[in-house]
Amino acid sequence: MPLPPARRINSRGRRLDPLALLEHQGRDLDLELLRAQRDRSVIAHPDLPRDVVVELCHLGAHMEASDVASCHPLDGKLVITAFFEPSTRTRLSFESAVARLDGKLLSVPDAKVTGVAKGESLQDIGEMFNSYGDLVVMRHTRTEALEEIGTGLELPLVNAGNGSGEHPTQALVDWYALLKWRPCLADPEPAEDQRIHLGVVGTPGSMRAVKSFVFMALAFAPAIRRLTVVSEMADPFGADLHGAIERTAIPVEVTNDISEVLPELDVVYMNSIALLGDSYKQLDSRYRITTDSPLRPDAVIMHPLARRDELDVSLDDSRHNLYFAQAAGAVYLRQALLVSLLGRVHRLPFFD
Amino acid sequence: MPLPPARRINSRGRRLDPLALLEHQGRDLDLELLRAQRDRSVIAHPDLPRDVVVELCHLGAHMEASDVASCHPLDGKLVITAFFEPSTRTRLSFESAVARLDGKLLSVPDAKVTGVAKGESLQDIGEMFNSYGDLVVMRHTRTEALEEIGTGLELPLVNAGNGSGEHPTQALVDWYALLKWRPCLADPEPAEDQRIHLGVVGTPGSMRAVKSFVFMALAFAPAIRRLTVVSEMADPFGADLHGAIERTAIPVEVTNDISEVLPELDVVYMNSIALLGDSYKQLDSRYRITTDSPLRPDAVIMHPLARRDELDVSLDDSRHNLYFAQAAGAVYLRQALLVSLLGRVHRLPFFD
Amino acid sequence: MPLPPARRINSRGRRLDPLALLEHQGRDLDLELLRAQRDRSVIAHPDLPRDVVVELCHLGAHMEASDVASCHPLDGKLVITAFFEPSTRTRLSFESAVARLDGKLLSVPDAKVTGVAKGESLQDIGEMFNSYGDLVVMRHTRTEALEEIGTGLELPLVNAGNGSGEHPTQALVDWYALLKWRPCLADPEPAEDQRIHLGVVGTPGSMRAVKSFVFMALAFAPAIRRLTVVSEMADPFGADLHGAIERTAIPVEVTNDISEVLPELDVVYMNSIALLGDSYKQLDSRYRITTDSPLRPDAVIMHPLARRDELDVSLDDSRHNLYFAQAAGAVYLRQALLVSLLGRVHRLPFFD
Repeated sequence: MPLPPARRINSRGRRLDPLALLEHQGRDLDLELLRAQRDRSVIAHPDLPRDVVVELCHLGAHMEASDVASCHPLDGKLVITAFFEPSTRTRLSFESAVARLDGKLLSVPDAKVTGVAKGESLQDIGEMFNSYGDLVVMRHTRTEALEEIGTGLELPLVNAGNGSGEHPTQALVDWYALLKWRPCLADPEPAEDQRIHLGVVGTPGSMRAVKSFVFMALAFAPAIRRLTVVSEMADPFGADLHGAIERTAIPVEVTNDISEVLPELDVVYMNSIALLGDSYKQLDSRYRITTDSPLRPDAVIMHPLARRDELDVSLDDSRHNLYFAQAAGAVYLRQALLVSLLGRVHRLPFFD
Repeated sequence: MPLPPARRINSRGRRLDPLALLEHQGRDLDLELLRAQRDRSVIAHPDLPRDVVVELCHLGAHMEASDVASCHPLDGKLVITAFFEPSTRTRLSFESAVARLDGKLLSVPDAKVTGVAKGESLQDIGEMFNSYGDLVVMRHTRTEALEEIGTGLELPLVNAGNGSGEHPTQALVDWYALLKWRPCLADPEPAEDQRIHLGVVGTPGSMRAVKSFVFMALAFAPAIRRLTVVSEMADPFGADLHGAIERTAIPVEVTNDISEVLPELDVVYMNSIALLGDSYKQLDSRYRITTDSPLRPDAVIMHPLARRDELDVSLDDSRHNLYFAQAAGAVYLRQALLVSLLGRVHRLPFFD
Repeated sequence: MPLPPARRINSRGRRLDPLALLEHQGRDLDLELLRAQRDRSVIAHPDLPRDVVVELCHLGAHMEASDVASCHPLDGKLVITAFFEPSTRTRLSFESAVARLDGKLLSVPDAKVTGVAKGESLQDIGEMFNSYGDLVVMRHTRTEALEEIGTGLELPLVNAGNGSGEHPTQALVDWYALLKWRPCLADPEPAEDQRIHLGVVGTPGSMRAVKSFVFMALAFAPAIRRLTVVSEMADPFGADLHGAIERTAIPVEVTNDISEVLPELDVVYMNSIALLGDSYKQLDSRYRITTDSPLRPDAVIMHPLARRDELDVSLDDSRHNLYFAQAAGAVYLRQALLVSLLGRVHRLPFFD
């Protein structure tokens, strides 16, 4: 079935071409691996091993390159988006993904309109959701909230951010952008001059999106020449990430001087705010990046957005800007994930 | 048309089988009675006489036993869920019911985002809704709100809870669970050993769900051997329920000692909070039920949920737990109601 | 294709018949003009010249007179309703229009659940929306918000009210009611006795709906015999409206005495509240209209609603009441607009 090309792209910064990723892969989708994701939950980094990430990005690229709406892949499926911590980007990108594939939505944009405000337990809410939908996407201010709802919930659960825990689908979105930008990063042994010096500006231990991104980077160890974390904290990692770093051969360093390391980085990953219990801590103002920062000419900047001052708008029109393309790919990657978890891969036109 | 069986069930406690109800009925659906519900409103207990309740439960059991989504029964119909008092369970179960049947939704989850916050009258909002949808499901903190919107509204109106008034669709959900649990309760003359001693823990006069449940129980008088209300109040009923009780032959008593009566009860119906004007009053802490409570071995506990401490989680895995199955049936019963009120019964595959 | 007649009408006041407008037009729809609206934005009055207004009303009348849902005109299109300032009527009428035509919706009913609350810029939100939907309907408390989001947004943008700026689709709804009421007002030269003395009670300079309505009235200059503004302010217009008034030949006057001018008016347009920065100012209590007001027997009252005390409910059952019919037409006119902007006019059954 010939399909018209998809239309949406980022308006500024680098454009990322899904065909680049598809051509580099040069093989059919791994239908068995995608089918095996059916009814699984995505809570944290162990739920997304490297081969699954690559295949979801592969499928996402197919969805970005084609218009699959006419296949109605999620027809009859009902997704509950339960955002006990408010969100725009993540919630709307999941909801856009569902709507584009003709699924149905039950939206809880705010804890204040739920029984949680009256003191209902997450376990009871999980039990309730069993009867109401087919999959739950949940965000919560508390790290342990996923475990609590999981004691009652029997549906697949997708973590859209739990306190200072993880945000695994953001990491998927981030690596989808990286693999479109440089497809050989998915190779078992990328050429030496293609391997990246990755800089992370922020605190993985208390920034869930950064933590999930770094965990996923460790799973792509052959692609990472070096990892530098820029933070004013002596130990920005936290215990579980420490253990994972020690199990890889990637050289890792921490610095509090961004101007020293910036000229060496191929990829700069930034984030805006760290969760500290119920409050937020903004990124140290020294770590602001602008067009005046000493970036390599071909360096790219990633940011899960929303941003504050740390990422200057002067960069938006530059070739350093990978963050708009990163955001623009979010819907396709989440479509690939939902279609897999809901067991509807066979409805897509990419298989014979 | 052969239809696949439905999938959702409660994870714990008793499972209720819709086939038990269908086999006991042993007859076709009463198409004429269901069709006669078209364009009706459901405001309070007189809108749901016994024969209509039985037939909606009969239809709900068919919907629970089959997957009717592929018939798109509510295609082209638009339901407005107007929750001026926030709710999770009731709103989401109505919205799930609509979405599963391929109807459209306009959702007002919160009075704060409406013109009501700016001082608009409910009469004007009712007039507005006439142009926007086909049926309105409404909840409000004030008892008189339904009457007010009704002066402007010409669409069918379903009461999803009005102050300390009624909550008639919750009573439908409750009786759907009871009729699946013991189908002969719908008979004109149930066998003596099947009739139930019903205990109600709470204050029907100020708890709308309990009030509607008791009104519906009175309509099933042959099924009720005795009704005991456990309350610290001398008169927990309120005026209108008093009159209805006097018109039945059911023996009714009030006690403030739960441990005395609990060993005699077949069915225990609990609720959590009572509305007192704009505030809530929690159930008296003496009336808490746990696995240590002196329940009969085959007694079942019902609760419209959400719960607080009064219903201990230790009961969740016991055979006393009917409340999870009660909640799990809510979507099917509300589907049966909406399909009937919106005149789409003929789209269902249960009629020749 | 024969289509069943539409069902929804206002319950009280005058009924407006779309066939009256269609018969007066007596010609086919101007397909080329409607198709030329594809991908356009509607920000302010210059985006809606007179010929476009007439043709959108013409199309709206066709949609009101027929049931076009079975054509699924917006199938596969996704509309984002971003209401950073809360609204009931405008948001729900847009959402009803989308749902009735089988489009999909992403709804942002409240700024509090968005990244805006965390300090995200509207420019970044606009960039984000590019990947999430096909058209954005936006309301905001600040006048300059549209310009800000427009720096990032590449999708068509419909202004649903920006601070004290404009509310152009409300003006479309208003003129749709006027053209159904007296179709010859769309003629190049209406007969002298059909031209109207238009009274506006309120402050166009600080009431966005009134401002857009008056701008559109100026575009229909041949239909306006005289324009009287009733306000306690010496200059109720503001700078840009002043210039536009000077470029027409319509006699314009300002008075603070409503009882003096009311007996002369054919059409009275009222509004309730004026925006003054972040606060509201209610209409002067002297300008209240009731059945005791000295209205001409055939005068009609318009109001975009919601109302407060200025428009007494005693008028609801009178023939002066055009405001309920005005509201009842809103969904059809917004359907006509969305189908045009989204390039789906050809899906409608009105063209050969």
